[in-house]
Amino acid sequence: MIVLKFGGTSVKSLARIKNVASIIAGTAKQDSVVAVISAMGDTTDYLVKLANQASEKPNRRELDALLATGEQISAALVAMSLSEIGATAISLTGRQLGITTESIHTTARIVDINTDRILKHLKAGLIVIAAGFQGMTPDGDTTTLGRGGSDTTAVALAAALGASTCDIYTDVSGVYTADPNIVPTARLLNEISYEEMLEMARVGAQVLHPRAVELARKHGIPVRVRNTFDSDHPGTTLKGLEFMEIYRPVSGVTVDRDQARLAILKVPDRPGIAGEIFGALAEHRVSADMIIQAFHEDRSVNDITFTVKRSDLETARKALGEAAERTGAEGILADEDVAKVSIVGAGLLDQPDIAARMFTALGRAGINIKMISTSEIRISCAVSDKDGEAAVRIVHDLFHLNEQE
Amino acid sequence: MIVLKFGGTSVKSLARIKNVASIIAGTAKQDSVVAVISAMGDTTDYLVKLANQASEKPNRRELDALLATGEQISAALVAMSLSEIGATAISLTGRQLGITTESIHTTARIVDINTDRILKHLKAGLIVIAAGFQGMTPDGDTTTLGRGGSDTTAVALAAALGASTCDIYTDVSGVYTADPNIVPTARLLNEISYEEMLEMARVGAQVLHPRAVELARKHGIPVRVRNTFDSDHPGTTLKGLEFMEIYRPVSGVTVDRDQARLAILKVPDRPGIAGEIFGALAEHRVSADMIIQAFHEDRSVNDITFTVKRSDLETARKALGEAAERTGAEGILADEDVAKVSIVGAGLLDQPDIAARMFTALGRAGINIKMISTSEIRISCAVSDKDGEAAVRIVHDLFHLNEQE
Repeated sequence: MIVLKFGGTSVKSLARIKNVASIIAGTAKQDSVVAVISAMGDTTDYLVKLANQASEKPNRRELDALLATGEQISAALVAMSLSEIGATAISLTGRQLGITTESIHTTARIVDINTDRILKHLKAGLIVIAAGFQGMTPDGDTTTLGRGGSDTTAVALAAALGASTCDIYTDVSGVYTADPNIVPTARLLNEISYEEMLEMARVGAQVLHPRAVELARKHGIPVRVRNTFDSDHPGTTLKGLEFMEIYRPVSGVTVDRDQARLAILKVPDRPGIAGEIFGALAEHRVSADMIIQAFHEDRSVNDITFTVKRSDLETARKALGEAAERTGAEGILADEDVAKVSIVGAGLLDQPDIAARMFTALGRAGINIKMISTSEIRISCAVSDKDGEAAVRIVHDLFHLNEQE
Repeated sequence: MIVLKFGGTSVKSLARIKNVASIIAGTAKQDSVVAVISAMGDTTDYLVKLANQASEKPNRRELDALLATGEQISAALVAMSLSEIGATAISLTGRQLGITTESIHTTARIVDINTDRILKHLKAGLIVIAAGFQGMTPDGDTTTLGRGGSDTTAVALAAALGASTCDIYTDVSGVYTADPNIVPTARLLNEISYEEMLEMARVGAQVLHPRAVELARKHGIPVRVRNTFDSDHPGTTLKGLEFMEIYRPVSGVTVDRDQARLAILKVPDRPGIAGEIFGALAEHRVSADMIIQAFHEDRSVNDITFTVKRSDLETARKALGEAAERTGAEGILADEDVAKVSIVGAGLLDQPDIAARMFTALGRAGINIKMISTSEIRISCAVSDKDGEAAVRIVHDLFHLNEQE
């Protein structure tokens, strides 16, 4: 059994929906197929716009009832298109798929999947077309899963059904060593570990939502990222590190230009102060990244610097300003001119010279590094926005990522 | 308790949805309210177009899954708009409303309504916003109710809930003695019997679907037709003939210009022949009206003439041609140039001179009558299409329908 998932650009028009139907029908010749479908193109954005016109702060239960229709529409159209080419398919909503979620609207997590109905249809020889992004509360109300919802639906169904593979069809052929729009010599990766993919996804690669990658890792589901418009291409396979053929020191390099930097200066050095500051941001639903707490000459205070999404800067600046007053900090600094350049590789930590080589190469090119943060398999540098893409090219060249392994 | 229903033009835009929300909130100040909402403007047509692009003959189950989203979208937006003005509302899909239908897709009839959930929400002080036009099969699949579906939802809910009134909000102030676009002096009727409304609806008045009128008559639900854009106006009340203050000989005059005439000539006069002919039409889902079987000089054969919708003419012509060959009839005639002008009145049969006066007035105006058919409370004449509107004005004047009763 195979689970397929098609994103919004793959079903943007009827012509594309027919292409998707032919991929599904082709796969169904050999395997039982459950295909998860996203809303067509900009449907979700359109529905959100309507909701914002109806209400300044739309009721979240109603927002879910509204948004879930987007995937129901595309799923029904895919099922119809399959009938048209002689395949028998049935579209199912989140409820009909047996997906129970928390009773939390717009960002519900899946609690349980009762696969009885899906299995019944598969046994009867039907292709199951699943409306992505949605489930129901135990009371039978519609919920949506939030960002990355359809990816999550696909991986969760694959786990619940014990599927052999989960193929995520998107508009690129897989995961590249860098964005080919920035680095023309970027190379497609045949395989990548869940862990690397998580870091790649978090720092700007758009192909697969981190939440779905985490779920796939947890359940050990082999996920393939494939191209809807070049469906013969094998794409990139995600697998556990333990199954990787090669531990590459550097698998890819990414840039996230939607970044800004904030600093709170001379915060009193006492326990709980960081929790207070980032709690204030969390209250406003702002996520902070690259958090650095630097020693100050005056040992009784600290400077804390971090990055946020540029679109969150104003909210964050306000929340941080209030926190500064409350905590007796000296003040805050904001810097919109930030891009985050990262290298990701499962073998990074084995080779401590990698970081130094990256910093040196950027310095030689005259690119100033504003901040550095690292994880086990990632090194990120904040640079000036104008330097972001050049930095990606420099690092891609430095580690010869264009060359076959 | 009051059931309200708002048609597609009433919720065509967000501005109109906000107007609808304010009517609902105003009504809810005095009564418990269930408001049935149609899909926004042309949404259903748009979804049907998508379906027809996906498949030449869309799978009917999938078509229902697709179409039901239209009303779910508008219901959620109305509920949001109510929250915005401080009212608490909850939108419910056909399934959540407890509406069980036959397992027949795209034209399902309601089998049962379990009102538990609606009553629970009403008791909690909520306004219930019902997605019209839809229900679910006993297996939990979405169905739609076909033409007039949202009107039917409203009247069926009113019956199941024992509502005191069912207000059908549309884009006119009620039922007129004639189409005001054709007859500028047309007068709004304060009340009309279900029976008259049925005849009016069948012959071209668009305000309320006959199916909903029949249901209202069966359950004795007082239905009011009211104007969304002039909500202070009392509109027209539908009630049982026994409760009518006045039996008018003629309540209104209508014209249906979407008509064509077909005849099958010299059909052998033997039992079952009419069933054979109209069975052939029914197989192609063509409804025939004004069926007239005329004696022929040659007593062994008959001519049978009837009208169909003009859009059905080609299908009907083909089916009838085949029936002519099978039955040994001489041939068929088709005439596209037909409009059907009808007068409707509960007191018609008490006054046999009415028909004669109508025919005479049309004749004096030089309008040729091609066919005549009558029911207990209706007299219809088929005339040339170009004469249709003039005929309406002549008949309206003849019976002084512009004058107050």
